[in-house]
Amino acid sequence: MDKSINEIIKPGLGLKVNGSLWIEADGKRFFGPGPVELLERIAETGSINEAAKAMRMSYKKAWELVSALNRHATKPVVIPKTGGEHGGGSTITEEAKELINYHKQLRQRFALFLESETDKMKS
Amino acid sequence: MDKSINEIIKPGLGLKVNGSLWIEADGKRFFGPGPVELLERIAETGSINEAAKAMRMSYKKAWELVSALNRHATKPVVIPKTGGEHGGGSTITEEAKELINYHKQLRQRFALFLESETDKMKS
Repeated sequence: MDKSINEIIKPGLGLKVNGSLWIEADGKRFFGPGPVELLERIAETGSINEAAKAMRMSYKKAWELVSALNRHATKPVVIPKTGGEHGGGSTITEEAKELINYHKQLRQRFALFLESETDKMKS
Repeated sequence: MDKSINEIIKPGLGLKVNGSLWIEADGKRFFGPGPVELLERIAETGSINEAAKAMRMSYKKAWELVSALNRHATKPVVIPKTGGEHGGGSTITEEAKELINYHKQLRQRFALFLESETDKMKS
């Protein structure tokens, strides 16, 4: 194989290696950009409801994500607070923050992989 | 951040970093596992129609993939042969084989990335 991909595909097409990444538990996706954004928005707003709205996600779906995360974690990642006039007061724990941070670093390593593969394709 | 992900997520859940990968031209997916399998099956069967059937893909979709590949390539990757009693005789070119080979190597590098991230998560 002597030819580089760049000789096979026309130049100037803006070739890019792209992809998506997630974390599975027992073969099922359970953590990725969606749950991370939900945790971050719960931290911002103090409300699972507000966080879901901001993501155009149903309240039911948001609760399912939160309860799956809590079920999988050694300690809860979200402490929900229901009731009250506005239903606010939900918080995320240190464990949630560490999960968010781990995910950020994982995404950075993936971005580097994609960049390096995109560069490689062009040389 | 002192805790590893393994201390935050319960042990024994079969944690795994997984993902998908594709190649874009001008921001649109144009090459990935599907087109590669189509090329391989055209090579095997000599027929775009048979290749599509084996993948439960419509003939129209297979033709669209083939023509997009040919449009993006400096030389055609598939030489279609229509007509004849069985409509066979389509072939793939050296360029197609190099594209398949490049993709195989890319997938291997991605598999290594995912394995290394899965291992990292466990330590």
